[in-house]
Amino acid sequence: MKYSQQIREACRQGVWVKPTSGTALGYVQANLVILPQALAFEFMLFCHRNPKPCPLLDVTDVGHPEPILIAPQADLRTDLPLYRIFHGGELVQESTQIISDWRDDAVGFLLGCSFTFENAMLNAGLPIRNVEQGINVPMYRTTIPCVGAGRFSGNMVVSMRPLTMSQAVQAIQITGRYPKAHGAPVHLGSPQEIGILDIDQPDFGDPVEIREDEIPVFWACGVTPQVVLESVKPEWAIAHAPGHMFVSDWKDEQLMA
Amino acid sequence: MKYSQQIREACRQGVWVKPTSGTALGYVQANLVILPQALAFEFMLFCHRNPKPCPLLDVTDVGHPEPILIAPQADLRTDLPLYRIFHGGELVQESTQIISDWRDDAVGFLLGCSFTFENAMLNAGLPIRNVEQGINVPMYRTTIPCVGAGRFSGNMVVSMRPLTMSQAVQAIQITGRYPKAHGAPVHLGSPQEIGILDIDQPDFGDPVEIREDEIPVFWACGVTPQVVLESVKPEWAIAHAPGHMFVSDWKDEQLMA
Repeated sequence: MKYSQQIREACRQGVWVKPTSGTALGYVQANLVILPQALAFEFMLFCHRNPKPCPLLDVTDVGHPEPILIAPQADLRTDLPLYRIFHGGELVQESTQIISDWRDDAVGFLLGCSFTFENAMLNAGLPIRNVEQGINVPMYRTTIPCVGAGRFSGNMVVSMRPLTMSQAVQAIQITGRYPKAHGAPVHLGSPQEIGILDIDQPDFGDPVEIREDEIPVFWACGVTPQVVLESVKPEWAIAHAPGHMFVSDWKDEQLMA
Repeated sequence: MKYSQQIREACRQGVWVKPTSGTALGYVQANLVILPQALAFEFMLFCHRNPKPCPLLDVTDVGHPEPILIAPQADLRTDLPLYRIFHGGELVQESTQIISDWRDDAVGFLLGCSFTFENAMLNAGLPIRNVEQGINVPMYRTTIPCVGAGRFSGNMVVSMRPLTMSQAVQAIQITGRYPKAHGAPVHLGSPQEIGILDIDQPDFGDPVEIREDEIPVFWACGVTPQVVLESVKPEWAIAHAPGHMFVSDWKDEQLMA
């Protein structure tokens, strides 16, 4: 049994209820969004038009909880550590499985996550400050508009990792090889230019140290679809709890362009 | 005005009614499929699951004929040289515009085409036999199954270009850089292995010479969605007439991975 399958099995049994960062290294992890079919085309269109914040890895058939591309035989109703259920955009419940909340018109979207490109950066010897400091990556709302699609629109959320100029060049090359895991940065340098007023006060996650010889480097962030969904307020939606990702059977190398 | 815009303007005026191969070199051209909204999610899912034969470049908002990513301000109802209108899977009409046939629930899909990777091969000094012979590329139905999505399923259609082994290696590298234009080949060598019984009798296009030191190299082909649509028989659908593609504002380099 693949290690990814073992983790999913432990989630299914209710034994694994913790975050998945740092586990199953080398396996692609994914953000989960589940929506009613009535919103599925528009959301898929939104993801297609905004591939950096919303890189589509897999989309399920209507009513079927199996991601046939990235984890055949997995079950999106049970195989994540922790779920969040939203009604009208409001968080109503956290749960370790969603069997009774699943619907016949449910469509599951699995979106690439930054763990893949962070592993690639670490393997190349590049520093990741928030990993060094043992805290969450800082994330910011920006003034970079996403391309709208039907009811879905809003500005991009970005994550930030400080690097020297020469490290930034390497990081652009390395993360650019993973377009399905947010790809190359969307901006580097001046935070003001993308509407970030105070780099020390992230909107999500924790602030990190930026040293004298470093610039902030910004990547499109998987929190973007969540923020966009907040404004759409779908009558019913389910997502993974932050950090509690879906562990797929794909290896990082399979995401390489 | 960009040269791509000039071509689309000529199509709009009804002045350009010929194929687009060999024109606007360097600009990305696209296959067109227009379907009712009721089929849009399933077809988009089919394309997502089969990115080699069906590389999605742009998808329009419901009822809006503008491809906002690859050609803002273009109009899919007028800007192609020639259209084919299908009812129940049957070709009912060819037309130079589809203004009166457009519907409020229409969704346009623009899919990458092989012109992009053929240009890249030619620029790298690789031979393309059908171009040398001045005929159509040979295309074949295969036994390679596409990943199904709802009502959409079927086998892949491939195009074939003969190359020596060392040319094949180069071609794999070069075309692999264009995943949105069918990408790297899906097979090389034995035609039988993918269900092609007679390489000299293509199902579409013309047979080409394969020399003693060459092997056939097979790429996923944009005819695949048409063949799949034939079996779905949507009550209403529109496509470009073969060879009469949509000329976008994107340059080939923008499709590079």
